[in-house]
Amino acid sequence: MQAEIITIGDEILIGQIVDTNSAFLGKELNKVGISVYQITSIQDEKAHILKALKEAEENADIIIITGGLGPTKDDITKHTICEYFNDTLIEDRDVLANVEKIFSSYNAPLLEVNKQQALVPSKAKVLMNYNGTAPGMWLEKNGKVFVSLPGVPYEMKALILDQVIPKLREQFKFPYIEHKTILTYGLGESALAERIASWEDNLPSFIKLAYLPSLGRVRLRLSGNAYDKVLVHIEIQNQINLLLPKIEDVFVGYEEDESIEALIGRLLTEKGRTLALAESCTGGRIAKSFTENAGASAFFKGGFVTYATEAKINILNVPKSLIDKYSVVSREVAEAMAKNARLLYNSDYAISTTGNAGPSKGDSDAEVGTVWIAIATADKVSSEVFNFGNHRQKVIVRATNKAFEMLKKQIEVG
Amino acid sequence: MQAEIITIGDEILIGQIVDTNSAFLGKELNKVGISVYQITSIQDEKAHILKALKEAEENADIIIITGGLGPTKDDITKHTICEYFNDTLIEDRDVLANVEKIFSSYNAPLLEVNKQQALVPSKAKVLMNYNGTAPGMWLEKNGKVFVSLPGVPYEMKALILDQVIPKLREQFKFPYIEHKTILTYGLGESALAERIASWEDNLPSFIKLAYLPSLGRVRLRLSGNAYDKVLVHIEIQNQINLLLPKIEDVFVGYEEDESIEALIGRLLTEKGRTLALAESCTGGRIAKSFTENAGASAFFKGGFVTYATEAKINILNVPKSLIDKYSVVSREVAEAMAKNARLLYNSDYAISTTGNAGPSKGDSDAEVGTVWIAIATADKVSSEVFNFGNHRQKVIVRATNKAFEMLKKQIEVG
Repeated sequence: MQAEIITIGDEILIGQIVDTNSAFLGKELNKVGISVYQITSIQDEKAHILKALKEAEENADIIIITGGLGPTKDDITKHTICEYFNDTLIEDRDVLANVEKIFSSYNAPLLEVNKQQALVPSKAKVLMNYNGTAPGMWLEKNGKVFVSLPGVPYEMKALILDQVIPKLREQFKFPYIEHKTILTYGLGESALAERIASWEDNLPSFIKLAYLPSLGRVRLRLSGNAYDKVLVHIEIQNQINLLLPKIEDVFVGYEEDESIEALIGRLLTEKGRTLALAESCTGGRIAKSFTENAGASAFFKGGFVTYATEAKINILNVPKSLIDKYSVVSREVAEAMAKNARLLYNSDYAISTTGNAGPSKGDSDAEVGTVWIAIATADKVSSEVFNFGNHRQKVIVRATNKAFEMLKKQIEVG
Repeated sequence: MQAEIITIGDEILIGQIVDTNSAFLGKELNKVGISVYQITSIQDEKAHILKALKEAEENADIIIITGGLGPTKDDITKHTICEYFNDTLIEDRDVLANVEKIFSSYNAPLLEVNKQQALVPSKAKVLMNYNGTAPGMWLEKNGKVFVSLPGVPYEMKALILDQVIPKLREQFKFPYIEHKTILTYGLGESALAERIASWEDNLPSFIKLAYLPSLGRVRLRLSGNAYDKVLVHIEIQNQINLLLPKIEDVFVGYEEDESIEALIGRLLTEKGRTLALAESCTGGRIAKSFTENAGASAFFKGGFVTYATEAKINILNVPKSLIDKYSVVSREVAEAMAKNARLLYNSDYAISTTGNAGPSKGDSDAEVGTVWIAIATADKVSSEVFNFGNHRQKVIVRATNKAFEMLKKQIEVG
């Protein structure tokens, strides 16, 4: 069973927004056994939309269309779909009531264009959008399903999870798809590939392997696809059991949909341990990563973003003499930051970062890319130095990732 | 002149990664006058790649292909392009030297698969990749240009900016495209559309308008497209001058490629003012947003992420009695946080956030979504309360955006 995703909107083609909807759709469709054959992003332009619908109908069984359902003149998806189905628009009373309810809750006047959101093709089954005014629409043609959804991510997501996926599962029988991802670090893509070559060659045909390298890590993704769920599930686990002994540095326990910081948060919460942060060059990114996940308050006491050198002295009580002697990017300062953050927040662990993310040298002579990361526990403070290159964003992300790795190792040893 | 972008990789289709390359490519191509007709994302599968190349050749003049150039077995783009051009692979000596240099700088052993990165189609012009081992490749057929680039974003970006765009400009004459975006807040999409309807109806045919709503803001994008650069540039400015008086809340000075936080950073730096933060529910996101931009140290002294209630007391010196009396999500606590953060960091401004991002109630009885935001200056502390709904990520992002808006207004008044 194949799906095609069509995302509509000039803003995607000119790069004003990144299309994150497609990744969400790909992931959710895969979970229930629907492979995405192609993602096609096109402009708000009638002829092009009609062409894309026709091609998608030839290639796929399920066509998910997002975007172009807003109330303004540049949004033409609904009228174009209506034309594609030789249909006419009719007013849906329930959608109109939903639109009226939303506007009255905002105390906003209901305009004529807003009322037009209640017009839907007569052949469409309405998927009620409780988070916005544009309804989802489900249409069928020659046994193929077309679903049109608003482009606003949280509206689209709720419609997919609550209505589209359940309805697809009612209507079709899908093969079972299972992805399992192993997160490795320490080895590059090709060195890793060489090390596991014989294992890879012996994978059964219904399991595919992919290498996904990114900033100091390589994710290995195993994808099983067959109608026999038990077979796929057991064989993927078998293959992982054969694979793991061949690799040294793996984030054990990492789950496909889970970020490293969520995994660390889970470990800390299970162990009843707490964390504090003292960030300089990572500038709040580590804190932000932990607090994005619900439940962070169970383990995360708080952090400092001591960006300026004077803040490290005044706020974190790093002795000025230490900074003068060793410079602000040094083992000594990193360790003092971690140690003091732990004491000030009264936490079990504290991580600190101090470095130079570039593009130019800052309050230190350290080369661009140099980052010291320290971890403090009740017993000791340890630290390491890295050079993460000369690309500012990359330095910040790699320093954040490395801090997670160091913290995870530390949590595992106690 | 139309381009098509083809991104290749199973990881995109199953939603394991978000395709950010296409947005970058769309933006850069547009800047030099190349419209992107379509973005097509497909699997690492030979027949599908060949089909996509053929269709792109029919629709576009320039075809940019990213991904599938890694050294591992799942990467088949190069061989498939070679087949599409009825070509054979030959070893390129300069690419081999580049690969060898990269591996020796990493002190990593050079494997046979790495050496194969130096194989390129004989008809291809090599675009040397100084950031990685997979070279870019430039091929031509019936007057159409095909460019194959690695999928690693920073490798792809350097190749596009340094080599592909200059080479395209040498070879073709492009129409002039100019986008100008007005960032508005306060009015919803349809209310805004109604207010500016007569203006919109009178736009000249070579200027298109798009509405881009997101979390409390609507961006209005004007896109001019014609061969007469002066005409496009002047007319866009004319139209903006007509438009601005019709809208109240606009981020004046906002530039297309600039984030609000970069704009605020620029304003603060120009005025020689400094900023500190005391974040609770935004969890470091505000700090991270400022420090992502180079030059943050000119205005950003630092921040607190006082996530736990005890941290607000011990670290930020918020009186426990205040929290007991008013609760941790309150005007009084928000204002104390901002005031104390400003004093501790000795900054001109401080912003604080305290709220409940959900999904469940935290250390306060405040409803999920409630956020207090306070701003402290030398003279006064002011604050506002908001409800940003019940979606955790959305609450964090909207609170961050609102803090930026409040800070920007404060900076403008002094």
